Amino acid sequence: MAKPQSFYLVCLAFSLVFNLLLIFKLYVGREWELSWSRRAAEEAEYVAAISCSGHGKAYLDGLTLDGKEPVCECSSCYGGPHCSEFLTGCAADAGSGDPLFLEPFWMQHASKSALVVAGWHRMSYTSADQSYISAELERHIRKLHAIVGNAVTGGRYIVFGAGSTQLLNAAVHALSSHNSSSSSSPANSINMCTCVDLLLWWVIPVYIKSPIEMYYQIQMEFFRSMDYVFRGDASLLQNISDATNVIEFVTSPNNPDGQLNKANVQGPNAKAIYDRVYYWPHFTAIPTPANDDIMIFAISKLTGHAGSRFGWAVVKDESVFQKMTMYTLIDSMGISRDAQLRALKILNVVLEGGGKDFFEFGYNTMRKRWEKLRNILSVSNRFSLQKFAPKHCTFFKKTREPSPAYAWVKCEREEDKDCYAVLQEEANVYGLRGSQFGAEDRFVRLALLRSQDDFDLLLQRLNQLVSEEKKTRVI
Amino acid sequence: MAKPQSFYLVCLAFSLVFNLLLIFKLYVGREWELSWSRRAAEEAEYVAAISCSGHGKAYLDGLTLDGKEPVCECSSCYGGPHCSEFLTGCAADAGSGDPLFLEPFWMQHASKSALVVAGWHRMSYTSADQSYISAELERHIRKLHAIVGNAVTGGRYIVFGAGSTQLLNAAVHALSSHNSSSSSSPANSINMCTCVDLLLWWVIPVYIKSPIEMYYQIQMEFFRSMDYVFRGDASLLQNISDATNVIEFVTSPNNPDGQLNKANVQGPNAKAIYDRVYYWPHFTAIPTPANDDIMIFAISKLTGHAGSRFGWAVVKDESVFQKMTMYTLIDSMGISRDAQLRALKILNVVLEGGGKDFFEFGYNTMRKRWEKLRNILSVSNRFSLQKFAPKHCTFFKKTREPSPAYAWVKCEREEDKDCYAVLQEEANVYGLRGSQFGAEDRFVRLALLRSQDDFDLLLQRLNQLVSEEKKTRVI
Repeated sequence: MAKPQSFYLVCLAFSLVFNLLLIFKLYVGREWELSWSRRAAEEAEYVAAISCSGHGKAYLDGLTLDGKEPVCECSSCYGGPHCSEFLTGCAADAGSGDPLFLEPFWMQHASKSALVVAGWHRMSYTSADQSYISAELERHIRKLHAIVGNAVTGGRYIVFGAGSTQLLNAAVHALSSHNSSSSSSPANSINMCTCVDLLLWWVIPVYIKSPIEMYYQIQMEFFRSMDYVFRGDASLLQNISDATNVIEFVTSPNNPDGQLNKANVQGPNAKAIYDRVYYWPHFTAIPTPANDDIMIFAISKLTGHAGSRFGWAVVKDESVFQKMTMYTLIDSMGISRDAQLRALKILNVVLEGGGKDFFEFGYNTMRKRWEKLRNILSVSNRFSLQKFAPKHCTFFKKTREPSPAYAWVKCEREEDKDCYAVLQEEANVYGLRGSQFGAEDRFVRLALLRSQDDFDLLLQRLNQLVSEEKKTRVI
Repeated sequence: MAKPQSFYLVCLAFSLVFNLLLIFKLYVGREWELSWSRRAAEEAEYVAAISCSGHGKAYLDGLTLDGKEPVCECSSCYGGPHCSEFLTGCAADAGSGDPLFLEPFWMQHASKSALVVAGWHRMSYTSADQSYISAELERHIRKLHAIVGNAVTGGRYIVFGAGSTQLLNAAVHALSSHNSSSSSSPANSINMCTCVDLLLWWVIPVYIKSPIEMYYQIQMEFFRSMDYVFRGDASLLQNISDATNVIEFVTSPNNPDGQLNKANVQGPNAKAIYDRVYYWPHFTAIPTPANDDIMIFAISKLTGHAGSRFGWAVVKDESVFQKMTMYTLIDSMGISRDAQLRALKILNVVLEGGGKDFFEFGYNTMRKRWEKLRNILSVSNRFSLQKFAPKHCTFFKKTREPSPAYAWVKCEREEDKDCYAVLQEEANVYGLRGSQFGAEDRFVRLALLRSQDDFDLLLQRLNQLVSEEKKTRVI
């Protein structure tokens, strides 16, 4: 029996409405259609989607098997094609200060921190204004110090460098070279055999206060400059007041013990280079903005992007600034524009909401790690940790708990003279020897800022060691 | 009058078919839906779309006006908000070797050369295998040398550096430092006043053959190492056969004159550092693969990405390789992972189709520029250019025309002793003085590898100068 006309009318009406809905969905309010960047975006998302079981990562520049997709690069104690297999008996690595504790933050903020680089981006050595640095990045850095309140930048100069490493070299070079040094050749000085002159005018002794990273010494002895010489511990220095032409490295907060050190050497000609890479709210309270003549920072320990090799120095004196800039130009013709662009993107995310999200994440991660470690070692008579007095933080506007980057562990037993060996042999944990910081080997440094996998294993191994200690005490 | 039922049936049929079409368009065969990378991709395409009239560019990290979109950065002689205004009377810049002649290639290959960097990309100092370099990038570099046939890499080591600049320093350091140098402190040597020892054992003289970039001298005198000293022109060196512990810089093809130089100094202890940054098919014929002990390359002059600061050295001797690697680690803790990733992406495009597209573009651009310049100067008695013999190129498999990066111009008139001044005052053209290359000021270097805008203006100004010369001859 034929349907009444009204039935067809109703169907037609529905169908037409459906037409309109589809047309709307298809053509109205669609997202921007990507062109040249789409291919790269798909490629990056494809690689990011490769599963490594949360214990590793695949990278765009990772090794590929027969030109296929990149393979997973696994955390130290995981293996297998997808990093799903735990390698039992594998040593807990608490050695180098690889700042991977912040990696989860950047994965949580994937969209904001992603970056697209065009093939023609910044091909030139300089910008149109003949500058080697991104003025926009410098502006972001000044803004960051202002909101965090950890350094005075008003009326100061900012030098970019390939991480703090290059900037430390640049600073020593700038402070030790006098005006004529870059023009006069070392050969002349030596040929004339003016060794006394050399000692008086050229060779400036450089000091540190131990315990401290001995990397400074390695650097200076490696470059064998005629202008400076590494002399060792500043606290051993006699008649400090007479100190002339002295350079001192001050790491504050200090690596390894996290203390807010100040320069030891005073006097009219004593110059200090402040390594401030750990002076951020996730590692320490910020009591007041640092106001040193030369302050060195880097994204490695700030945002965790150690691989980018980007840092900066805040410098008071213009001639020192000029010399440091010249150093970076002659050493590497400025700093990679790709690293500068990456740093800009990353700092943009850090600055959002006045830095609260980012620093809360970093602080809470490190604070919890320190708490867990302290709780485990608190029941031990064999091992002790450095102490921190609670300090008011002007950034968080409260008194905060300690959250250091490193644990400076001491073996208390008389016989445990080599604390590194004790932890290695009895707990299968690798730290760094006290002697690497100019201290006794009764001390060992354990890095707490590494990946979650590394930290969890470290904790588990120490827990075991300490519970065995308790057992033996009970017996 | 009511429509017949058949009419409604037809409408309904059309509407239903239309629905099916829309549904197909909407849900079938759609591209991969981007998630976290879309925002960055849109941002990059938005900035790339900012019009700068073809005489400038807007960059992601460019200056922004009141936090709005980045402003155009204009070529040297253009101004205005969109670089549309030619600045009459502006000087033609043929000074620095800014390799922008390749920029159009990368804009034509936007999709293939675009790069997306995730916020968590390579945060660590090293890869999972503890390496500071991308093994994939090293593989690409070896493949590139193999297809171009410009260097032997089989059984050689490859060191990465922040451009050729850092690698030159690393090479001199590696060749001049003996095994104990990094452990013994310069101070001791000086304190003991063993100047003669210093001369005999430490200070290795370094030579060059002029005309050549004097940057080598600037670098070495700046770092004032105790291990080496710049001594000047190798061709002035007496009894070469007796030369002991001598280092010579050889730039081949040479900057400024483009000649395929060979080391001057021979002998058992004479070591040469070959700067091979111009040894690519767009600048010179490739007669045979270079097989020097130390060969330095960089993407600056290969792909035009000077701002990325990435280069590499191909090294024969393992201990030299170890020392150079150590130098880059102690100087800057390795090379930016961002620069390495960019280089990988760029070299990927270069390698496509056996490098034909890329090198054809580069060669044709430079060949045409040289032709035009030569045609203009050919009618002049006042200025002359360096000569090139036609050479067979094993890459293009043909005898090719000259296409040098620089014109090495000589002022032939007796009175034109300062050729730089002549071009500057009479043509408003800026080159580099001959004396900057250790040659007479009767010579001037004009860079031909800069942007099209710079080259066009250079040509126009020279044309004018030469036509005036003709007029005066006629009169």
